[in-house]
Amino acid sequence: MEKQIGITVKKEENFSEWYTQAILKSDLADYSPVRGCMVIKPNAYAIWEQIQQYFNERLKKLDVKNAYFPLFIPESLFKKEAQHAKGFNPEVAWISNTEDGERLAIRPTSETIMYDSFSKWIRSHRDLPLRINQWSNVVRWETKATRLFLRTREFLWQEGHCVYETREECEKETLLYLDEYKKICEELLAIPVLDGKKTDQEKFAGAIYTTSIDALMPDGKSLQMGTSHNLGQGFAHSFNISFLGRDEKKYFPYQNSWGISTRLIGAMVMMHGDNKGIVIPPKIAAEKIVIVPIQFEKTNKEVIKKAKELKELLKIYRPILDDRSYSPGWKYNEWELKGIPIRIEIGPKELEKKQVILVRRDTHEKKAVKYASLKKEIEKFLEDIQQNLFAKAKKFLEENTIEAKNISELKKAIHNKKAAKASWCSSQKCEDSLKDETGGAKIINITLNQPKNIKNNCVYCNQKAKYTVLVAKSY
Amino acid sequence: MEKQIGITVKKEENFSEWYTQAILKSDLADYSPVRGCMVIKPNAYAIWEQIQQYFNERLKKLDVKNAYFPLFIPESLFKKEAQHAKGFNPEVAWISNTEDGERLAIRPTSETIMYDSFSKWIRSHRDLPLRINQWSNVVRWETKATRLFLRTREFLWQEGHCVYETREECEKETLLYLDEYKKICEELLAIPVLDGKKTDQEKFAGAIYTTSIDALMPDGKSLQMGTSHNLGQGFAHSFNISFLGRDEKKYFPYQNSWGISTRLIGAMVMMHGDNKGIVIPPKIAAEKIVIVPIQFEKTNKEVIKKAKELKELLKIYRPILDDRSYSPGWKYNEWELKGIPIRIEIGPKELEKKQVILVRRDTHEKKAVKYASLKKEIEKFLEDIQQNLFAKAKKFLEENTIEAKNISELKKAIHNKKAAKASWCSSQKCEDSLKDETGGAKIINITLNQPKNIKNNCVYCNQKAKYTVLVAKSY
Repeated sequence: MEKQIGITVKKEENFSEWYTQAILKSDLADYSPVRGCMVIKPNAYAIWEQIQQYFNERLKKLDVKNAYFPLFIPESLFKKEAQHAKGFNPEVAWISNTEDGERLAIRPTSETIMYDSFSKWIRSHRDLPLRINQWSNVVRWETKATRLFLRTREFLWQEGHCVYETREECEKETLLYLDEYKKICEELLAIPVLDGKKTDQEKFAGAIYTTSIDALMPDGKSLQMGTSHNLGQGFAHSFNISFLGRDEKKYFPYQNSWGISTRLIGAMVMMHGDNKGIVIPPKIAAEKIVIVPIQFEKTNKEVIKKAKELKELLKIYRPILDDRSYSPGWKYNEWELKGIPIRIEIGPKELEKKQVILVRRDTHEKKAVKYASLKKEIEKFLEDIQQNLFAKAKKFLEENTIEAKNISELKKAIHNKKAAKASWCSSQKCEDSLKDETGGAKIINITLNQPKNIKNNCVYCNQKAKYTVLVAKSY
Repeated sequence: MEKQIGITVKKEENFSEWYTQAILKSDLADYSPVRGCMVIKPNAYAIWEQIQQYFNERLKKLDVKNAYFPLFIPESLFKKEAQHAKGFNPEVAWISNTEDGERLAIRPTSETIMYDSFSKWIRSHRDLPLRINQWSNVVRWETKATRLFLRTREFLWQEGHCVYETREECEKETLLYLDEYKKICEELLAIPVLDGKKTDQEKFAGAIYTTSIDALMPDGKSLQMGTSHNLGQGFAHSFNISFLGRDEKKYFPYQNSWGISTRLIGAMVMMHGDNKGIVIPPKIAAEKIVIVPIQFEKTNKEVIKKAKELKELLKIYRPILDDRSYSPGWKYNEWELKGIPIRIEIGPKELEKKQVILVRRDTHEKKAVKYASLKKEIEKFLEDIQQNLFAKAKKFLEENTIEAKNISELKKAIHNKKAAKASWCSSQKCEDSLKDETGGAKIINITLNQPKNIKNNCVYCNQKAKYTVLVAKSY
């Protein structure tokens, strides 16, 4: 019954099919009978919990409090901020609320339901800053093709919503949260990101501006990893959120909102996975080690005894002890498919030498390690894997982001599945045109730290450029 | 601006209004613009997180894995198990899914959506037991009057769903999870509960039997705190969940499901709160201490310095340092309202004597404690508070659960806002009749450990009794 369970296509040959198989076969997720929705299986949910645990710690330090607001938003409330309503309306799922005759939106995001409460909670400058976060499900009735983790009609996320006395605080913290997201991506998920501002066309509906971090995936497409929106005073006006200032006069506060989602798990799969399966960066792996005993009838008892000792010794890494009645080779394949960072092999030969074999998931490098130095070596292996994954991804990003001085260079770059750094005059006409010319690449973001002098002219119109931007196809 | 923020009615005089004020004024929750839905504010969400953290640890030990299933359930799927569909149908909120023409239920519980997946995941006895848990929101479109935390149209909960090879395992673990819930109630929330089986009328729709824990609230009404359902093979047949057994033959597995919800927070408020506000049992309080400095201009600097030292010293209890510009008395009121277990007062007099004043939230007892023994005393105070709350609640339960040998004793007990232990013949007729006779009290549960010999005859028909049951009015 030991059938092959591996991925049947190559990542470099059929990326899209490879991605789907990698997710399904590593037991991260499953399709659901509701079109566009997915089941997040325990292996993926454990990664989400690692992200939650890490970020909740950070949120506590930043004095952000977790809360929970209703799933349903009355239509009248949902439509209070005109831009916001217009932007989200096409993808809202509604239920009919027969009692009041008013439809209820199933939250695609919670600005409107939260800010209705905020307008009651905030009276004085003493109530500010107010910093609220929510971990929840949201629903966006996508009409585009859905993809596991990347675009589903329901997904899990966190949404932070802060209210400030001053514009300056608001701007500063909008970037602060973006920076927190950058840390999650780079330090936990080992995925380098580029931070920037969205163009007006691409910003969040209702925001003054949207900042984002974006990562370049192996197929040359950019994936938005997190956003932080400066909402200015627009929602405050629409929802009548005001406060008595230090001078006893009435003011409207400044707001931001920011979010990351289970999409990050999809990014991790794409970025680090290989033809043997997914690769979970150690810092985000709930179970960092699998112990595979090499079992023979004669020595089985001693081997299992030692394996159990190792499991106890290494318990902070939550090791899996796989003593099922399959062959070692079959187990190796399965755990490689599932991306466990380190495999420990132990059999009678190892027992004799008082050692184990450590195998890294990322490089497949093997090393014999004596019991005495096992803990130290494991720690080092885990760090090395984490760093190696990031370094590889960083190298990929650098090698695949090239400068494009004019439209023909840009077209070539996009054709070759690269991202391009380009200069842009800031007109929407050029933004639209370069999308047409490249067959769909768009301005991913306006680089956050702009150079003092923009080197080139606008990549499309060749007039004086205003910004350096990142251009790529995108998810 | 130091207006009184306290509760304006007495718990013993107007319990219902007291409950609502206690919740709103302690910032646990707020009403929402959607009728029957509520906002769970940070103070209450923190309690929910404490429950989650504790229970997640337990679930890991019990080898239950967290996962996440879709919010939406296609109508055809939802209706596959006839009893289940019939029971839940009246309270399901539906959305129209125009593409497929089929309505989608917003999950009131997830048996049907999960078991559809289970039928794909389970092939062999090697796949069993399967133990899955989900933390999520659920929606039940209540037609009864809603109450904050106790009955809302959306609430947060966890639902566990297990699949077993044998009936025995399934029965055993159905009770195991009930016992875990009992621990949460008694050890964390300090609320004693009575465990039992629901009558056939009251069991979960689709279950063979439902076990529950129930607590007696101060108004003499029983509140269901958690349930664990033995589903037998009914869902397995409806969803075609089968496995190849050890003898290579096909079998249907046995299943259970079990849940607790944010309702527990409402129970905590009712059980322990007093006329000054809510009282959070120490084990469930995220912030266990509030430090209130007694501030005078001359000594303020030193007092604040010491208060900060204490905050650092006691950081495992996540103390709040309240150095706002309100009077100490006002702050005392606020933190009593919010139920923080211990208050530390420190002013110039205390500085001089190298001591602080500790004040217990439950008994208001004060004690001067030298710096040197502070940590030890705090630990002791917290334990004492936890024990005292439980002991008080236990005493209340015992004093308010009385034996009723016949219907007139039962009517008297219920009239006096007591719960009653009674004997029952097991007929639905008597079950219905005693409800009518008592103005709505019902059989809460059939006591789990039945006495060998039932003492009395049926409380209603006076025929031979089969069970000892708990009868009370209920939420």
